[in-house]
Amino acid sequence: MPAPATPRFSPAASLTAIRAGHPLVHQITNYVVMNETANITLAIGASPVMAHALAEVEEMAGYAGALVLNIGTLSPEWVDAMVLAGRAANRHGAPVVLDPVGAGATRMRTEACRRILAEVAVAIVRGNPAEVAALIGEAAEIRGVDSVSAGDPGTLAAAAARALGCTVAVTGAVDHIAGPGGSAAVSNGVAMLGQVTGTGCMSTALCGCFAAVNRDDPLRAATEALAAFGVAAEHAAVGARGPGSFHVNLYDCVAGLDPETLDSEVRIEVGGATPA
Amino acid sequence: MPAPATPRFSPAASLTAIRAGHPLVHQITNYVVMNETANITLAIGASPVMAHALAEVEEMAGYAGALVLNIGTLSPEWVDAMVLAGRAANRHGAPVVLDPVGAGATRMRTEACRRILAEVAVAIVRGNPAEVAALIGEAAEIRGVDSVSAGDPGTLAAAAARALGCTVAVTGAVDHIAGPGGSAAVSNGVAMLGQVTGTGCMSTALCGCFAAVNRDDPLRAATEALAAFGVAAEHAAVGARGPGSFHVNLYDCVAGLDPETLDSEVRIEVGGATPA
Amino acid sequence: MPAPATPRFSPAASLTAIRAGHPLVHQITNYVVMNETANITLAIGASPVMAHALAEVEEMAGYAGALVLNIGTLSPEWVDAMVLAGRAANRHGAPVVLDPVGAGATRMRTEACRRILAEVAVAIVRGNPAEVAALIGEAAEIRGVDSVSAGDPGTLAAAAARALGCTVAVTGAVDHIAGPGGSAAVSNGVAMLGQVTGTGCMSTALCGCFAAVNRDDPLRAATEALAAFGVAAEHAAVGARGPGSFHVNLYDCVAGLDPETLDSEVRIEVGGATPA
Repeated sequence: MPAPATPRFSPAASLTAIRAGHPLVHQITNYVVMNETANITLAIGASPVMAHALAEVEEMAGYAGALVLNIGTLSPEWVDAMVLAGRAANRHGAPVVLDPVGAGATRMRTEACRRILAEVAVAIVRGNPAEVAALIGEAAEIRGVDSVSAGDPGTLAAAAARALGCTVAVTGAVDHIAGPGGSAAVSNGVAMLGQVTGTGCMSTALCGCFAAVNRDDPLRAATEALAAFGVAAEHAAVGARGPGSFHVNLYDCVAGLDPETLDSEVRIEVGGATPA
Repeated sequence: MPAPATPRFSPAASLTAIRAGHPLVHQITNYVVMNETANITLAIGASPVMAHALAEVEEMAGYAGALVLNIGTLSPEWVDAMVLAGRAANRHGAPVVLDPVGAGATRMRTEACRRILAEVAVAIVRGNPAEVAALIGEAAEIRGVDSVSAGDPGTLAAAAARALGCTVAVTGAVDHIAGPGGSAAVSNGVAMLGQVTGTGCMSTALCGCFAAVNRDDPLRAATEALAAFGVAAEHAAVGARGPGSFHVNLYDCVAGLDPETLDSEVRIEVGGATPA
Repeated sequence: MPAPATPRFSPAASLTAIRAGHPLVHQITNYVVMNETANITLAIGASPVMAHALAEVEEMAGYAGALVLNIGTLSPEWVDAMVLAGRAANRHGAPVVLDPVGAGATRMRTEACRRILAEVAVAIVRGNPAEVAALIGEAAEIRGVDSVSAGDPGTLAAAAARALGCTVAVTGAVDHIAGPGGSAAVSNGVAMLGQVTGTGCMSTALCGCFAAVNRDDPLRAATEALAAFGVAAEHAAVGARGPGSFHVNLYDCVAGLDPETLDSEVRIEVGGATPA
């Protein structure tokens, strides 16, 4: 296949589309990070809405450009709401992004993810290695919601993409994204992201924002979202005196991402198509 | 009617009263902004308390100087708690402030507001144009919880004040407040408020703080709260590098509001009494 | 008894142990401060996990180095989860820390604490004077969740330690800690802590982190946690322009605590053993 006339990925183009269209991103997420994911959604230029009641999730999901499901601080009734919202998003063609926070740590979380994946057509799964491994029954070590060890993340992403039939992003020092359309690796980001709670959840919310403007290309959405967030994190680390100021800078730097320079700052390695 | 010997509004006088008395402001609000509205309440000099359980809301509301009800991230049992708390506040003479987050976006939210307004004597409603329009059955366009378009906000505030029989603040680039006692417009504030989630909810919490020291004058409370918050936002924008640092500055600048200069910084236009 | 060869307290030694072992600290806490206590836990070097569902709390508590229970924004089903998690932590030997937010303010909160204390072996209670007084049926004045007046805090801590049979920390301008093993007073900290919501809850979370590396010495854990937090708060006040920037600095300064200098900055007065 000849090289495409335009590069496979352009975070800048998607960023411009988000800021022009302000897509509504419906989020059913955990109590710890609701404020943070709403603010990062605003910072990138999209419109967040948080709604979890069974009585309104279908209606709200019907208006949304994307739906983000995040299972941190889960309770059983929230899973029902996630499935209901996910099916509504499916009916309306809005991509669904799943963050399996703590899958593998407790049976409840692993089973909740499996139920969501069985009953909803998920476009993108974004998790750490142990969480993604748990979804496909591979061995991994998890402590609370932090991945301690798992196999090679690129291989894991590809295996999970095949097993789950969707795009899977395994994030870490290097993020590995694999899906039916191919694979990619993103090496933007800084270690300090691990010192602020919810930065993984923020990256998932951004996957939702980028998916809203790339409905038919979840691999592109996830790759570009993680690359853009990584670039912003690199900017945020400059002058940060610790995790508190880094956290504040992160919103400033996501809002300050410049489409003129973004594509030259991302470090994306394009891989081959995931073998079937 | 002759001009009053003292100006109709003095945010500085109310601010001084809040800082002297530290009124307790009971808030039943949404998960996204609980930390933020508690911190803005502390920053102005009042005392926040968050409690939503059916088993304690009446007792807690009985101690409060004001009660703030905010329907973001609503679920049905929370509406019951809001009504119970609202009636307790009514019995104790504590003003009740309602933030109809997302009214008009889903039927559940519109109906929840109508139920609260029917069963509780609400002193102040503070919302964006689409939310307020939804409460009185007027046409408006809402996306998620953001107002997209509605009619003239001054006219809308007056119509809602008449229809609901309370003071109504419709906030935006200019805030329009109307109530049985007259009307006002506040043109303080900055556009960056729209880039941080929960700034509307914070302004509602401040309406509660100002209402606690102006029990018999909700129009004054809402107008002064919005003007003081707008002045603080103008201060916070100075030196902000984006929404993250602006957000942090907002707490510093609300806490730093100076009664010596505040009344000279507010831009309040006093209107006539709302025609019956 | 001769003076010990090493000083009774070394926050620096515990800090080093936390940063080396990254203990998992399971927290069932209130909606207002979940993000904040997770971030302060990360800043000190431990690993937070928030989980409250009945279906998973026992499993999660089984992995944890300590369990923190905080009753702010309580509802009845959360109390059941706290008891279930607390018993699991007891079985695994993980210390349990209780923050009785608002005990004494409403009957529900007082009774929830009493139930937890009756059914779970709690290692450390950390509260303000009015909250601790309420737990042992002493008179105190509380407004919302803020202590207005109570008796002498050192006497109160000792009385509560005797009555509850555990270590009790009564925090304020000076923190008084008393337990079966003795007593201590910590005079680190700054008044600005009272202007940011959740700083009490953060100090309780840190008690959990220090308890995870001092399983058999809750008096040491609580004293050192409060001293280290107080030192960080003193650092954070430098250059703070108000409660917003102070709050941000707090995370930076907890993360920046230096084991080389910490023990020279703490102001801990060691008291005698609590009379039986």
